[in-house]
Amino acid sequence: MTKLKCTVAYDGSRFFGYQVQPGKRTVQREIETALARIHHGREIKITASGRTDRGVHAAGQVFHFESPLSIPPVNWTKALNSLLPDDIYICRTELVSPDFHARFDVKMKEYRYRLLTRPEPDLFRRFYTLHIKTPLDLQKMNEAAGSIVGTHDFSCFCAANTDVKDKVRTVYHLDVHQEGGDETIICIVGNGFLYQMVRIITGTLLAVGTHVLPPPALSEIIAGRDRQAAPKTAPACGLTLWQVTY
Amino acid sequence: MTKLKCTVAYDGSRFFGYQVQPGKRTVQREIETALARIHHGREIKITASGRTDRGVHAAGQVFHFESPLSIPPVNWTKALNSLLPDDIYICRTELVSPDFHARFDVKMKEYRYRLLTRPEPDLFRRFYTLHIKTPLDLQKMNEAAGSIVGTHDFSCFCAANTDVKDKVRTVYHLDVHQEGGDETIICIVGNGFLYQMVRIITGTLLAVGTHVLPPPALSEIIAGRDRQAAPKTAPACGLTLWQVTY
Repeated sequence: MTKLKCTVAYDGSRFFGYQVQPGKRTVQREIETALARIHHGREIKITASGRTDRGVHAAGQVFHFESPLSIPPVNWTKALNSLLPDDIYICRTELVSPDFHARFDVKMKEYRYRLLTRPEPDLFRRFYTLHIKTPLDLQKMNEAAGSIVGTHDFSCFCAANTDVKDKVRTVYHLDVHQEGGDETIICIVGNGFLYQMVRIITGTLLAVGTHVLPPPALSEIIAGRDRQAAPKTAPACGLTLWQVTY
Repeated sequence: MTKLKCTVAYDGSRFFGYQVQPGKRTVQREIETALARIHHGREIKITASGRTDRGVHAAGQVFHFESPLSIPPVNWTKALNSLLPDDIYICRTELVSPDFHARFDVKMKEYRYRLLTRPEPDLFRRFYTLHIKTPLDLQKMNEAAGSIVGTHDFSCFCAANTDVKDKVRTVYHLDVHQEGGDETIICIVGNGFLYQMVRIITGTLLAVGTHVLPPPALSEIIAGRDRQAAPKTAPACGLTLWQVTY
């Protein structure tokens, strides 16, 4: 058996999220279906760095799988892409040691949230950005971001419906910057993220950027460990799992 | 009756083109359905600057219609957008004089063709760009473009299945430039375009850019007036009707 690590991009718009669910079109199911075809019907399970929710995109999600076949990595990439639908694309495949684990070995994950910041919507970016008509105060957003960076119990930024006990995570980097004239990007890097954490942080930074919440409130919200204290969750469409580092 | 001129953007990906066809989802049908709802079921016909083919997008298509209702233009925009699907967006509505005609009064049309010019595809732009893996020689493409600018019989760039007799058109401007690091844009402005003319010109410029066709061949191809002499038609997905000038 050889163990392979794949980096995959997907457009989350038409998936019910990453993880297999009965009767739903999911990224995992599409990839496992393609792998089964390559293995003449034999079921091959894949393990990703983590799930992404319905509507969330990936530019660099990572998964591993094991195969009895001896195929050079570059041919795995070609074979999978020839079988996958047009909203999933394998960027590269690498041979990894038998003890590599796509979830347990994650060192850092980077997410990016794209905001379309101009008065008019843009239908060509409707699946990939959140449209914010009002101007955003980037200086205040970055000030608030400074309070989020570091190791904290992030209960305040975790959706209620989760069974994760330990809510301490480290955010290494969080910044808000403009790109391409009419987009504002929220870029966040951490050792791991709680359920909907990036989308709740985005919602919180949007409240700061529109002067609904003053930046100093962030430290209190984090210290309070209460999800109810943080603003609402931003929608999935603007979010992309950008890269996973091992 | 008042006459109104609307500027409309649409994502052509999920339409069978602009023009009404029995049983098909088209841009015209969606807009006329929305207008009928505003007019309590009364049929209101719209007239556009011209059709766009299946898969072709628009950033600034224009149409006119007449209505017995007295609604301020800005409210027409809001009312239509509230009824239209998410892949059509009315940018603005203006009152025009009774003799305005969206097709007959066109002075210039601008089309843009987006090429994704890098080795890797980008699934987030798969509906809006044509992916060209090989590097393009922009200098040669612009040299060839120079032969297309001007007033010519463009039979060589007209798809066979058309009943248009007069194939003389004027191209005012045609250039090829890079944008945003990994895109190459073909921008063309003319007083009118024959059936699939922009897509055939794009295919021809791609043949020049990949050194299949030398730039001086363009003058001969145009003079020959034979569609068979020009390279193949580029796909619809990269093309956008950018703006219409009256």
